[in-house]
Amino acid sequence: MIDTSFLDHLRGIVGPSGHIDEPGDMEPYVAEWRGRYRGKTPLVLRPANTRELSEVVRACWEAGVPVVPQGGNTSLVGGSIPSEDNSEVLISLSRMNKVRELDALNYTMTVEAGCVLQAIQEAAKEADRLFPLSLGAEGTCQIGGNISSNAGGTMTLRYGNMRDLVLGIEAVLPDGRIWDGMRRLRKNNTGYDLKHLFIGAEGTLGFVTAAVLKLFPRPKQVETAFLAIRDPDAAIELLSSLRSASGDALSAYELIPGIALDFALKHVAGTIDPLEERHSWYVLLELATGTGGDAFRETIETALGEAMEAGLVLDAVLASSEAQAKQLWFIREAIVEAQKYEGGSIKHDISIPVSCVGTFIREATEAVERVIPGARPVPFGHVGDGNIHFNVNQPVGADTEGYLAQWDTLNTVVHDIVLGMDGSISAEHGIGTFKREELKRVKSPVELDLMRQVKAALDPKGLMNPGKVL
Amino acid sequence: MIDTSFLDHLRGIVGPSGHIDEPGDMEPYVAEWRGRYRGKTPLVLRPANTRELSEVVRACWEAGVPVVPQGGNTSLVGGSIPSEDNSEVLISLSRMNKVRELDALNYTMTVEAGCVLQAIQEAAKEADRLFPLSLGAEGTCQIGGNISSNAGGTMTLRYGNMRDLVLGIEAVLPDGRIWDGMRRLRKNNTGYDLKHLFIGAEGTLGFVTAAVLKLFPRPKQVETAFLAIRDPDAAIELLSSLRSASGDALSAYELIPGIALDFALKHVAGTIDPLEERHSWYVLLELATGTGGDAFRETIETALGEAMEAGLVLDAVLASSEAQAKQLWFIREAIVEAQKYEGGSIKHDISIPVSCVGTFIREATEAVERVIPGARPVPFGHVGDGNIHFNVNQPVGADTEGYLAQWDTLNTVVHDIVLGMDGSISAEHGIGTFKREELKRVKSPVELDLMRQVKAALDPKGLMNPGKVL
Repeated sequence: MIDTSFLDHLRGIVGPSGHIDEPGDMEPYVAEWRGRYRGKTPLVLRPANTRELSEVVRACWEAGVPVVPQGGNTSLVGGSIPSEDNSEVLISLSRMNKVRELDALNYTMTVEAGCVLQAIQEAAKEADRLFPLSLGAEGTCQIGGNISSNAGGTMTLRYGNMRDLVLGIEAVLPDGRIWDGMRRLRKNNTGYDLKHLFIGAEGTLGFVTAAVLKLFPRPKQVETAFLAIRDPDAAIELLSSLRSASGDALSAYELIPGIALDFALKHVAGTIDPLEERHSWYVLLELATGTGGDAFRETIETALGEAMEAGLVLDAVLASSEAQAKQLWFIREAIVEAQKYEGGSIKHDISIPVSCVGTFIREATEAVERVIPGARPVPFGHVGDGNIHFNVNQPVGADTEGYLAQWDTLNTVVHDIVLGMDGSISAEHGIGTFKREELKRVKSPVELDLMRQVKAALDPKGLMNPGKVL
Repeated sequence: MIDTSFLDHLRGIVGPSGHIDEPGDMEPYVAEWRGRYRGKTPLVLRPANTRELSEVVRACWEAGVPVVPQGGNTSLVGGSIPSEDNSEVLISLSRMNKVRELDALNYTMTVEAGCVLQAIQEAAKEADRLFPLSLGAEGTCQIGGNISSNAGGTMTLRYGNMRDLVLGIEAVLPDGRIWDGMRRLRKNNTGYDLKHLFIGAEGTLGFVTAAVLKLFPRPKQVETAFLAIRDPDAAIELLSSLRSASGDALSAYELIPGIALDFALKHVAGTIDPLEERHSWYVLLELATGTGGDAFRETIETALGEAMEAGLVLDAVLASSEAQAKQLWFIREAIVEAQKYEGGSIKHDISIPVSCVGTFIREATEAVERVIPGARPVPFGHVGDGNIHFNVNQPVGADTEGYLAQWDTLNTVVHDIVLGMDGSISAEHGIGTFKREELKRVKSPVELDLMRQVKAALDPKGLMNPGKVL
């Protein structure tokens, strides 16, 4: 138990508006939105600025009290939930939410950790710039969490992951010191690039408190297409040739299996099949250009025409309006929701080399059938990055609880196929507490040891977000 | 002195073709091509593969013998030269130079550290792919060194620095263990991204022995333009609007001052002034598109026409053939050579936010005039990244030795202006031994401390490339 007078000391640092200790008010901070993780903390702190946070963290460091950083609390792996034993102080960065600067000439934006992703996208748009990170939780998640979890999403094919969009960060170290790495530079070779230690570390090495983000020109013309394709191999061949033909203008490339479209049409009102016949595999893609004009659309039409002649594409619709493009994207979004109506779903967030996508889907599908006959794989997602959300719905009519009890068994089988292709068992969502044990199984001893050396060097007392990642 | 029998033990690991110990044969390894740095070693090792290297490094670790990694030995900061006291073993990775794999569908290439950059560019081209890293030393430098120094060059505006082009690496750790991080993945959030520790660490944390590189579609059409511009502020305004108008197709954007063109015309045969009048400032730019066609050229012509009307651009030539484009690039390349004929040159490889370029050049030029009246600044380079090679030639007729004696004094003055803009004192070239003392002056105690913590964690005996960076 944390000493009561110490908690009072922490309250004193942040003042009345900087802390929450009523159980009901703390609820949104200690529970996860899906209800899968729940922790317990005696105190939620919401510091107003980096200086306050620094004081709080230093006090905890000196007292040996563990701390849990939290942004929008949208983690899918329990990364922002405290332990259940009431031993950790939860620190939310949500009040540190100012856009400090937008430098349009430098194509950068300086933001505090608590800024909501969507607010950042909108501020960039107002300055005629693009901040490209885009993901389902963008209305809630905060940029500090996006950075700490190296968020992915739909636009990484063109713009990279969160890591690639950060020029500088400010961090509060485990002992409370502030590291000012807020550089707005495109080139800087002055020793170790320390920001990469904190990006993707899931709050286990320090608090990311602010960042300098890269901005881009806003595309002038976006073309959206929904294609029926021969099979996943065809998707990858087409991806390769489209990257080349379009001048690397592909900004999204999502695989959709026929079963996912069936689910969406069945369960989600407003979903419309854009093609005449039902096919086994689809791709939803987006191409964006800054120059615009008919030439770009013609280039795409030509490339798709050639792909149809080659038998890669079986049918296609190229959106003729923004409204139609939205309708096509609605299918992609409906897939996530629709799966819930088909009973239990055992999930995998994996990545493999793009060239292995077809083989992976074949092998993993066969393995599922061997382990749980009748289970229904729904492999969809960011296939342009080799990232597949390999979700497996329960057999029709099966007992959901009994099905979900096989979660770990199926994970092991699918992950082993992934590992055979030097793939990743967590492409986007991170490790948190959820995949911590699996991480130990799949990583080499050398790599685990290196990670532990880094952790011990930066957080020798082990007080930063304990029990996460390592 | 290193024990003779231990040297024999190392010789035994690599065999007769894996070591050099004749002083004459060792010369290219212990001396730098410009003659500025010279070290001394009892033994140069050239292991044939990662396993041999691992054995050598483990033996050195156990014996407490320091090691110096070396690639193409083109460092400009003494990063690959051993100390003068004969106490370090030099290990060249030049024999580990195989292209292990090129996966065109995955847009990746797997190479060993000793591959020469140009050979990698050419192998990519043969597979109809682009490896975009491009720099002066590309015919000699090796990819292991490019990675260890996070190389920059002319194409970073579009494709990023070396760090951004690496998906995975293999490293031999200071104690000889091999870390296999050779992932060919676009997304992978499974714990700390360890590759970023080794990239840009200048060989102080381990040997980079192999890497998975990102490839890109080859551009179908490249437009090259040489512009007379109003001043550096105009260059930045134009950069911003061209990024937007061209759909971020700018692949190079180089500032050239009038004095640099004068030097080139005077000293380098074959240099031709592409414009009718002499102007104070120029920009050489390159736009590359994958779609091609007249529309792209028209877009650029329109954008340049608008910039001329706005008074940003005073005159312009858009290359009408590849030969003409080469002639324009020849001017840029001639600048480096031409400065040698104008006496001593005190150099700065700095970067600042792109929006500060104009202010920096004004302030730094004024400062130079205050400190060394008559000295001639030649600020040129990758201004699209905010990276300026702020070289200062001696006053006409001055004593070269006396001028160069003021190197540190001028560096301090210019670097202080850079620091006032949160800039970098080494944008591209790294720290090595050359800027080691200056690094201590310009970095915050917290940052230096973090760097030392990382170094101590990975290399507790301090045997990896001692005396470099930290």
